[in-house]
Amino acid sequence: MKPLTNGLCAAAGFRAGAAAAGVKKAGTTRLDCALIVSDRPCQVAGVFTTNRVFAAPVKYCREICAKGQARAFLVNSGNANACTGDQGYADTLAMAARAGTLLSIPAEEICVSSTGVIGVPMPLDRVMKGIEGCVAALSTEGSAQAAQAIMTTDTRPKELACEVALSSGTVRIGGIAKGSGMIAPSMATMLAFLTTDAAIDAPLLQKLLKEAADDSFNCICIDNDMSTNDSLMILANGASGTATLQEGSEDCQRFAGALKDLCASLARELVLDGEGATKFITITVEGAKDRASARQIAATIARSQLCKTAFYGCDANWGRIVCAAGYAGIPFDVDSTDLYIQGVHVFQNGRPLPDKDAEVQPLMAEPKLAVRLSLQEGTARGHYWTSDLSTEYVKINADYRT
Amino acid sequence: MKPLTNGLCAAAGFRAGAAAAGVKKAGTTRLDCALIVSDRPCQVAGVFTTNRVFAAPVKYCREICAKGQARAFLVNSGNANACTGDQGYADTLAMAARAGTLLSIPAEEICVSSTGVIGVPMPLDRVMKGIEGCVAALSTEGSAQAAQAIMTTDTRPKELACEVALSSGTVRIGGIAKGSGMIAPSMATMLAFLTTDAAIDAPLLQKLLKEAADDSFNCICIDNDMSTNDSLMILANGASGTATLQEGSEDCQRFAGALKDLCASLARELVLDGEGATKFITITVEGAKDRASARQIAATIARSQLCKTAFYGCDANWGRIVCAAGYAGIPFDVDSTDLYIQGVHVFQNGRPLPDKDAEVQPLMAEPKLAVRLSLQEGTARGHYWTSDLSTEYVKINADYRT
Repeated sequence: MKPLTNGLCAAAGFRAGAAAAGVKKAGTTRLDCALIVSDRPCQVAGVFTTNRVFAAPVKYCREICAKGQARAFLVNSGNANACTGDQGYADTLAMAARAGTLLSIPAEEICVSSTGVIGVPMPLDRVMKGIEGCVAALSTEGSAQAAQAIMTTDTRPKELACEVALSSGTVRIGGIAKGSGMIAPSMATMLAFLTTDAAIDAPLLQKLLKEAADDSFNCICIDNDMSTNDSLMILANGASGTATLQEGSEDCQRFAGALKDLCASLARELVLDGEGATKFITITVEGAKDRASARQIAATIARSQLCKTAFYGCDANWGRIVCAAGYAGIPFDVDSTDLYIQGVHVFQNGRPLPDKDAEVQPLMAEPKLAVRLSLQEGTARGHYWTSDLSTEYVKINADYRT
Repeated sequence: MKPLTNGLCAAAGFRAGAAAAGVKKAGTTRLDCALIVSDRPCQVAGVFTTNRVFAAPVKYCREICAKGQARAFLVNSGNANACTGDQGYADTLAMAARAGTLLSIPAEEICVSSTGVIGVPMPLDRVMKGIEGCVAALSTEGSAQAAQAIMTTDTRPKELACEVALSSGTVRIGGIAKGSGMIAPSMATMLAFLTTDAAIDAPLLQKLLKEAADDSFNCICIDNDMSTNDSLMILANGASGTATLQEGSEDCQRFAGALKDLCASLARELVLDGEGATKFITITVEGAKDRASARQIAATIARSQLCKTAFYGCDANWGRIVCAAGYAGIPFDVDSTDLYIQGVHVFQNGRPLPDKDAEVQPLMAEPKLAVRLSLQEGTARGHYWTSDLSTEYVKINADYRT
């Protein structure tokens, strides 16, 4: 796997464009509509929020992904089109129809995603103008603008691409993502759009995407709120001319690995840009009975408000970490549990090691922290990525109307 | 049920005392040891943390409550005696033994509780002096001092009492509680000590205490961290001279109701004094399939960081509330869901009602907020009490070493 520039457009046959439609704020020039289009038919796969309250575009995209065929992603930021009833769904269809007409693509091959305020009707006239602007702006250099246009409270765009050498040639995978609040586990917890010029059928693509999400977007936590709009989708157009990937083949494994790495990198970017985040913390649990148990304990620590505020305070507060592990609902023997913070062995067999504070405290000012909890229940391990909880997070979310 | 003064000592036959032992900080005069003693044998019941990592005194008190006989509560604040291994348990036994000797009570009838920093050995010499001070200070006026002595980050003591008229006479119930951080659901999530002069056998007392906890201390949320030390215990000494309570009797129901009300009042006090809290929010869910479902949805809203920061920001953010309800893991139809904030109907059948912001926003500055989510899945209801999440909470927990 080799990193590439040009994000979504690194894969052959994809163009992207963005426009300022005034959805975020009428009359401004902030980009808030994005369009990503393949020059040929694609296979599509998607992973969506498990929230019972889901937005109209999520309902719509689930239907498309079930069929497995699409050509484009149409995205607006500034309005989530959630809790908008039948009108919301009609608006989603209207957006797809408009893009379809302009692109001469069937409307049902345009995936639509929305992010922003909940419960406000979509300003359809403005969005329609935005779609026209996106089509006019389409280019093979447009990925960066698309990454910019899907942002809400993000402070910077997230855009990545890589290439993978397969036995029949080289394929590329690119992606953009957004989301710095309402980032919680259990699902693809943000918006992320991926493209690839690999040739792969939708069912296998869906399987690989799900696996990649489990090890990336489902391992991150900023706050613990699962959004109504979370979506991760990938278009595969086969434009690389390589052979169609077969499940279980070495090529497939190589592709799956690259997809997973790309998703993990994007997921880490989301946490690094978490609302008010000043630190990026990797929680690793090892020696667990099974992977799910390790993950569950890591997730519980990652979500603990007390641990997150301690990280913010540069406090190597092993007590809160061990305490959070204790209420994860997974049996383990604390008397054979060890804890390492920033590589320093601070807790051994259920008790703190003496005089470790002086050693570990200076390391807590680092922007990246590593916490490793070592059990003696088995050999499985799991990880979680989280941000700290800062006063700035509270300020952002007390003032911003989601 | 009639409110009384004098907290723990409102019930006949109980004395309380406190001392400054220097556990919180050596050399200061801040009270940090408390003792509550009955002048005759008592039945005892207790509800404890479900955290897998639990403190030595929790292990010890579980053993006492299983036997059902005790005479006293000995409490220190400033040191949790958690993650302190065998030495921690030995220290707990030593504390009980010292109090037992001074009071001429068997050591195994002295319940010991600790709260404060985790993983630091108990400063036993200082605590021993504190126990002596507590014994010297014992009086029927000592409840207020005991309530003061068990505080950690609490800004004020919590102390209540009431009397209940039974067919064979009047009984009294009193209590003190502490805890303003590490307050989470699923268990008695703080320290609370109750006394009563009712005559009741330990098994029934345990049953009533458990039920009272479920509707009070298990319905509150400040942060979502479950402590290693959470304990709720009650001593019943029968000093009222009333007949022994029989399960199912009218007297028993009256007593159980008073116990539940007292626990609920103490639990609300904890939330009102939550770390950094500026608001007290009651979340009610009605029209649920069953009580557990209603409670689960209410709890999910109560714990949502985004909802809690919105409350802090005086924002009637119905979108975050409905969104949090959606990821509670309980099936419901959002299209037949209504939401009321401060009594204002803001959301009907899955959509926001127009122009309600102007009506509800001015009401959000109130210190007490009411959120009511109305489903159409059944007739059950449940509630949760929560605080808001403020910048002050983050500051407190970034700076304070639990």
